Amino acid sequence: MRYISFSIEGAARWGWTDGDRVWPLDHVHPSLKAAIEAGPLGGVPATDGSSFALADVVFLPVLPDPGKILCVGLNYENHRRETGRAEVAHPTIFTRFADSQTGHGAPILRPKESEKLDYEGELAIVIGKGGRRIAEADALDHIAGYSCYNDGSVRDWQAHTIQFTPGKNFPETGAFGPWLVTPDAFGVPGPQRIQTRLNGQVMQDAVLDDMIFPIARLVAYCSTFTPLAPGDVIVTGTPGGVGAKRDPQVFMKPGDRVEVEIDGIGILENGIAQERRAG
Amino acid sequence: MRYISFSIEGAARWGWTDGDRVWPLDHVHPSLKAAIEAGPLGGVPATDGSSFALADVVFLPVLPDPGKILCVGLNYENHRRETGRAEVAHPTIFTRFADSQTGHGAPILRPKESEKLDYEGELAIVIGKGGRRIAEADALDHIAGYSCYNDGSVRDWQAHTIQFTPGKNFPETGAFGPWLVTPDAFGVPGPQRIQTRLNGQVMQDAVLDDMIFPIARLVAYCSTFTPLAPGDVIVTGTPGGVGAKRDPQVFMKPGDRVEVEIDGIGILENGIAQERRAG
Repeated sequence: MRYISFSIEGAARWGWTDGDRVWPLDHVHPSLKAAIEAGPLGGVPATDGSSFALADVVFLPVLPDPGKILCVGLNYENHRRETGRAEVAHPTIFTRFADSQTGHGAPILRPKESEKLDYEGELAIVIGKGGRRIAEADALDHIAGYSCYNDGSVRDWQAHTIQFTPGKNFPETGAFGPWLVTPDAFGVPGPQRIQTRLNGQVMQDAVLDDMIFPIARLVAYCSTFTPLAPGDVIVTGTPGGVGAKRDPQVFMKPGDRVEVEIDGIGILENGIAQERRAG
Repeated sequence: MRYISFSIEGAARWGWTDGDRVWPLDHVHPSLKAAIEAGPLGGVPATDGSSFALADVVFLPVLPDPGKILCVGLNYENHRRETGRAEVAHPTIFTRFADSQTGHGAPILRPKESEKLDYEGELAIVIGKGGRRIAEADALDHIAGYSCYNDGSVRDWQAHTIQFTPGKNFPETGAFGPWLVTPDAFGVPGPQRIQTRLNGQVMQDAVLDDMIFPIARLVAYCSTFTPLAPGDVIVTGTPGGVGAKRDPQVFMKPGDRVEVEIDGIGILENGIAQERRAG
């Protein structure tokens, strides 16, 4: 089953989709996050009879309002190596605020402050059942679903100091979509391919099994220092091939088109737009 | 004027206090954050006639539900030097989740995973008027008030990787209180003394003017990469003298008592308790 958050005629809604039409489910719960909080997603939900063509809706971030967004750095060996960072025994965790996100099909914004906007294709997991100190053996049972994430990074601001926060939180830089795929449909994470393409050219190409710290370990580790709740998001890290570590460097510029594709989920596609607003 | 968030008879409330009694203000706005969102705090608000002895209420974090908690690292020269970190041209920013906080008088929790719990006395500012790319010259006009913060840090988890997140987000490690002091009562930040005492012994002692990046610069910098909203919090960094950099090292243990005192605000005091819960 695939769930999406979307807007149509200016109203924020959610529903399920077969990839062609969308059936709203607002009459059951006010948002996808509220549905996840209410209990396991699953089965074909009772719609109110209305539906829209998927082509007519505006995609919102899969969860526009997650409680916590925990991001994992340096979780693929070829990316760790390209950054020159030391091997470590624990996952590298930084955070995003919800208002740094954008949806599938919407532009990723290059802010006025920088021309060093980079892509990072990643698998996002959404917590279904909350918990503290979740055992690795139980971790996959705590996942409501999977999606693609483009952890758009403003590299010069990320490198201002030793902490990544500023470069990872510019508004509309973190693309999250196109939809949430439930575990029964996605299967056990591992063999699925993850690929990032910039203007059609493959820039990152890996399988989820290449992660240094697998998903179960990420859930266990994060839930040790912070309680996880339904609707929290863990963005699981990016493979090698980021633009900033290429020679010559490649950064995303207005008019570019970036895709993150993961087997069993689909394609998250975004254009790049230059922020123009004053202020 | 001083505003506090508190609970009594199990109900979370807020109000203003003269340091002796508390006058609830829930009849005006449901929370201190909601009051800040509604407009500038100020003047003596109309109470509903009820009041409590301050000694009878349980202090909650000044804002139990801030939108964003932006924390500043390495913002006093003697602390930067004791950590051995390089000088940088920008503030070092990491984040806390709201559920890592605790109130004045409540215990700071030493988690089961570590015996390296350290204090960090800091000034917290609460945003009153939101904005993006706030100019330094206007920054102080965006502040609703000031409070004390003890940015309790689990040092081994903070040092797991290059990102501080895990060591800064264990539940009930960030003490925020005792109350919010409005700018008219606090005055212009600068000459006020900030002192941290552990079991009565002075461990950190500075004046706010010792900050490398002053408050106006922090507001301007943070609001450049992320919009600030009413009720967001910036925790402005800790002076030299943290326990982990002493010889021999000093960590907080169950039964200890830690105070953060700032001129014009008062004393944030917390005991240390060992987490005992299973799971």
